[in-house]
Amino acid sequence: MKHIVITAGGTVEKIDEVRQITNTSTGKLARLICKEVLDYLGDEDFTVHYIMSKRAVKPEVVQSKMMIYPVSDTQSVIDAIDKVYSQHKIDYFIHSMAVSDFTTSYTAPVSILAKEISNLIQDNPVEELEEKIQEILTSPYCALPRGAKISSREDIVLGLKRTPKVISYIKDRDPETFLVGFKLLNGVSEERLKEVACKLGKDNDCNLVLANDMCNINNEKHEAILLKDGCIVERFHTKDEIAKGIVMRMLGENK
Amino acid sequence: MKHIVITAGGTVEKIDEVRQITNTSTGKLARLICKEVLDYLGDEDFTVHYIMSKRAVKPEVVQSKMMIYPVSDTQSVIDAIDKVYSQHKIDYFIHSMAVSDFTTSYTAPVSILAKEISNLIQDNPVEELEEKIQEILTSPYCALPRGAKISSREDIVLGLKRTPKVISYIKDRDPETFLVGFKLLNGVSEERLKEVACKLGKDNDCNLVLANDMCNINNEKHEAILLKDGCIVERFHTKDEIAKGIVMRMLGENK
Repeated sequence: MKHIVITAGGTVEKIDEVRQITNTSTGKLARLICKEVLDYLGDEDFTVHYIMSKRAVKPEVVQSKMMIYPVSDTQSVIDAIDKVYSQHKIDYFIHSMAVSDFTTSYTAPVSILAKEISNLIQDNPVEELEEKIQEILTSPYCALPRGAKISSREDIVLGLKRTPKVISYIKDRDPETFLVGFKLLNGVSEERLKEVACKLGKDNDCNLVLANDMCNINNEKHEAILLKDGCIVERFHTKDEIAKGIVMRMLGENK
Repeated sequence: MKHIVITAGGTVEKIDEVRQITNTSTGKLARLICKEVLDYLGDEDFTVHYIMSKRAVKPEVVQSKMMIYPVSDTQSVIDAIDKVYSQHKIDYFIHSMAVSDFTTSYTAPVSILAKEISNLIQDNPVEELEEKIQEILTSPYCALPRGAKISSREDIVLGLKRTPKVISYIKDRDPETFLVGFKLLNGVSEERLKEVACKLGKDNDCNLVLANDMCNINNEKHEAILLKDGCIVERFHTKDEIAKGIVMRMLGENK
């Protein structure tokens, strides 16, 4: 039995109970890829594990060969991947989700943070100040309690710390998983896009990388290049083409 | 001809091309209120001006007596209100939208921001440092260019500045508009909720204020109190009750 994981949509990182950092990703491409996988494998014995953010568009049909894993923030995506890998041998992993690079580490009012930093100056030798200031900006004492709704009386500073790179986990869990990575940039040359996408592929041992630029995506078209071992193997112009192309290459060549 | 404005959903403030700060508001209550207004006024001569965020749930029926104004960030809400007031005499304004209290003013890598602050120390007298640091934290020279996609190589600081209070504009535009304000808090006593909601009502000259607490809202129930001149005039337990209650009191008493 084949097991395919597809991740869809964009993660949501909480700032407080009502505010959050979201990603503009809609999950539409993942939905199309899912449909292509279902069509391609047809009556075969397989399961699609669909890890989707709550805001992503829902798959067209949810049938018995699909399992849905709703997720919210980056940690919940990692937890879902852990769950899937602990229960199944995963053959294919299409990681089209836009996972947040950052999560909220603190919020602090500007004036109180300025006071905390200026107090530091009296107590520390000049040569250590830069490092000490960096520590405060990373994790200040004056941070507001987590979960409290932020007051709007003052300008605030929001500290964002990097999240773990989800894509780097996949091959660690199973080097035999066929991994499709995605790279989205904004307003770069194709050369630059290819370079960054190749690095993603190399660093994470991707079998394929789909690279695209926000400037070349709108309601009508979705330009993208597909990379394998650092070379462009296909060019696409619509989401449909991308979905078909990835699935054909992934399942067609790797039965 | 009556003109009614309803604001719905939550605003979205851009961080960069793919990241944004959103609000969890769905616009469901506004949709119900809209439906009640349409039902109540029936064949009368009126227009509902529906100012809604793109992520808000759409009104059940969009008919000829409704005009839709899609908005995104706080500034676009203000622009939409300006437009409506410049063209019509607004009789009723139901401001149920969750408008962001903050918008992004800058993003800066933690290490570079720390360097900028520590450089300051050599050039300025100690007694002015706190103020100078506050200036940097409000608007640093090292801020990343606006619109650039933020690199994920470093922890970053996001500066958030307060947005103008949309609700305070309404009576400035027309003191005769019947204004319904909304106050949502999280995990407070009813006494505290009433106090904060009364202040909102007083500061902005609201005719009615609907006050609720996130802890008392779930899929089944939506507890809320309706305040008039600082007193509780009604209690509600569901979104339906809230929508009916507000519309009855607003249109019933003010024909």
